[in-house]
Amino acid sequence: MIHVAVLGHGVVGSGVAELISGIGEGLTRKADELLNLKYILDVREFPDSPFAECFVKDFSVIEADPEVEIVVETIGGTAVALDFTRRALTAGKSVVTSNKEVVANYGQELMELATEHGVTYLFEASVGGGIPVLRPLNQCMAANEIQEICGILNGTTNYIFTRMIQGGLSFEAALKEAQEKGYAEQNPAADVEGHDTCRKICILASIAFGWHVRPEEVPTVGITGVTLHDVAFAAAAGKKIKLLGRAIHNADGTICTYVEPHLVDVSNPLAGVEDVFNAITVKGNATGDVMFYGRGAGKMPTASAVVADVIAIARQMQRSAYRPWSPSRPERSVSVDTLESPWMVLLRDGELSQGAEIQLSGNAEGHGFLVSPMTRPALLNTLQGLEVLSTIRVLD
Amino acid sequence: MIHVAVLGHGVVGSGVAELISGIGEGLTRKADELLNLKYILDVREFPDSPFAECFVKDFSVIEADPEVEIVVETIGGTAVALDFTRRALTAGKSVVTSNKEVVANYGQELMELATEHGVTYLFEASVGGGIPVLRPLNQCMAANEIQEICGILNGTTNYIFTRMIQGGLSFEAALKEAQEKGYAEQNPAADVEGHDTCRKICILASIAFGWHVRPEEVPTVGITGVTLHDVAFAAAAGKKIKLLGRAIHNADGTICTYVEPHLVDVSNPLAGVEDVFNAITVKGNATGDVMFYGRGAGKMPTASAVVADVIAIARQMQRSAYRPWSPSRPERSVSVDTLESPWMVLLRDGELSQGAEIQLSGNAEGHGFLVSPMTRPALLNTLQGLEVLSTIRVLD
Repeated sequence: MIHVAVLGHGVVGSGVAELISGIGEGLTRKADELLNLKYILDVREFPDSPFAECFVKDFSVIEADPEVEIVVETIGGTAVALDFTRRALTAGKSVVTSNKEVVANYGQELMELATEHGVTYLFEASVGGGIPVLRPLNQCMAANEIQEICGILNGTTNYIFTRMIQGGLSFEAALKEAQEKGYAEQNPAADVEGHDTCRKICILASIAFGWHVRPEEVPTVGITGVTLHDVAFAAAAGKKIKLLGRAIHNADGTICTYVEPHLVDVSNPLAGVEDVFNAITVKGNATGDVMFYGRGAGKMPTASAVVADVIAIARQMQRSAYRPWSPSRPERSVSVDTLESPWMVLLRDGELSQGAEIQLSGNAEGHGFLVSPMTRPALLNTLQGLEVLSTIRVLD
Repeated sequence: MIHVAVLGHGVVGSGVAELISGIGEGLTRKADELLNLKYILDVREFPDSPFAECFVKDFSVIEADPEVEIVVETIGGTAVALDFTRRALTAGKSVVTSNKEVVANYGQELMELATEHGVTYLFEASVGGGIPVLRPLNQCMAANEIQEICGILNGTTNYIFTRMIQGGLSFEAALKEAQEKGYAEQNPAADVEGHDTCRKICILASIAFGWHVRPEEVPTVGITGVTLHDVAFAAAAGKKIKLLGRAIHNADGTICTYVEPHLVDVSNPLAGVEDVFNAITVKGNATGDVMFYGRGAGKMPTASAVVADVIAIARQMQRSAYRPWSPSRPERSVSVDTLESPWMVLLRDGELSQGAEIQLSGNAEGHGFLVSPMTRPALLNTLQGLEVLSTIRVLD
């Protein structure tokens, strides 16, 4: 019997407790007979919970109990969560988390700490919720060199775009609807400004390339500037607007990692990813494009990914740990300003003198153009003196 | 250093040799420094091969060499491949294969034989080519009960449908084109009659449900009966025709596994899977639908999946072996004739008296209907006395 402590009893934490104990709506069995839920750490009171006897308020109880072999961290944020993760690993307990902020910022340190203490640090649920992507990326593609990762990694922003495109809602109206449906936080900054996507592409890039790619190295543009005007012209071009996190491994060994809204051709499978769904495309030199698709968030999808990691550890599969990351290599990162892409440009008036391949028609005011591949600095040079409504990168 | 023998030097086998040795077009490194390619078994002569010194014609050389720890079987078929697999496992060597026919028919026996001899039998490449699906299904979804698997599992038939739908080609013309492009065998029976899809859904169902689901238990309908008439009416209904393998876990513990052409709504991600691509949707009770998408065949995608299994074994990850299957449970299988689905029905003349929800318009002669969910026997009862052109199940 493996004893487990779950830190935090919010949305994900309570789902983890239900799966490990087998107590919860629609559950007919425990996730694994090996597992026993011994503690739940939360500062709040849950007197009517079926897990009432498991609650503790003091982490040192868990830290000091030698029976606890696996600690699940679902607290979120980086303050307390990071402290408890370090202390659990140092106490010789394996840690499983869904906390992308901790992993993206401190993953290298925490994996080294785990190795030092002979335990494991796993975080499948931190990217793509219930979609298995980190383990397949790490293991099944061991025989591939990863050339590119490109993903719709944030369900909130994808929902907002879907409503703008299909429902004709403005960004503000779509965001309000997402908040009413519980898909967006009351403070939506982490989602709509792209920080959540940034953390996830950092984790994917670090696993794919083998070194820690840090959020502060990754230029991040959110979706707050995208208008219905953009959406209409994109549609006229047979494209949809998606917020993508991309990590590109160049032939010279450098990488390019960034987050930005893109037009995606409707023939690309990523264009068909609607609502709160996520999808991650991985290009290997042998496999070509492989795509992983599913619900990127939600209580039980995320909790099931956490518990799958717990089971992997319980079954003595510590050797399936992710390949440890070496320290950050900022010198191997190149600016997104070196990346040549096609662009969609909307002008108030006037014509493009250079690079315009296709003139778009649309119902909205202004003129739209699809521009042949060039870097952003080159594009801005081309646009000097014109009244530009928007420029959006096209996924090629 | 782990010594590997590769049985067969055809399309997949030669790709495996290239990845293990690092010798091959576009390869810049060996897949893993731990691996050494010691033998290649083939009855043919390859005097100009870069692997010339590795070739042997007698399996007993490999069987008797204690240095060989992993044997890769890429021979195909069941006669020699099965014999060599049994002998390799019995000699204490782990075996990795891409041979779906052997796995679907003898997987249970071979996994037991591997366990008995303390070695591993892995077959990620047998389903979905380079798409990682068996390992995620087995491991990452450990905390889920699998409710349904539904997949486009055969690239040849999907290519034929794509050409019929997009190009207006007849089945015969599309098949001929697929043969000219090398996507279909000169004898296309295993593909177009659904046997290849059947073997793959058997392997998926066996991993998901934990017991061996055998091909002879799985009713299989191929695509030879599908006409342009069907395609036109499907399009009028906003649907595409796809050959699906499905394995459904019913609430009462029974399963329903079958292969049949279906209409798929264009809003379903499976409808967007075109050409030779494959996609597998897995529905877990916690994750909801998760989809895996990519090239389901081809030399390097398949070879990279084989080599990923080899690396997993070489890295002492034998405990990540698939959960062993218990013997076949035909009593847990229910007939596809118990499954209620919507249907598309095309009639030469006349009207449907029962169950017709929507009348379709199309350019083709005859009348089309979408019929509300019922079993196939109930449908046939409803259609008595009418001249029926076709009936196709709709994925709901």
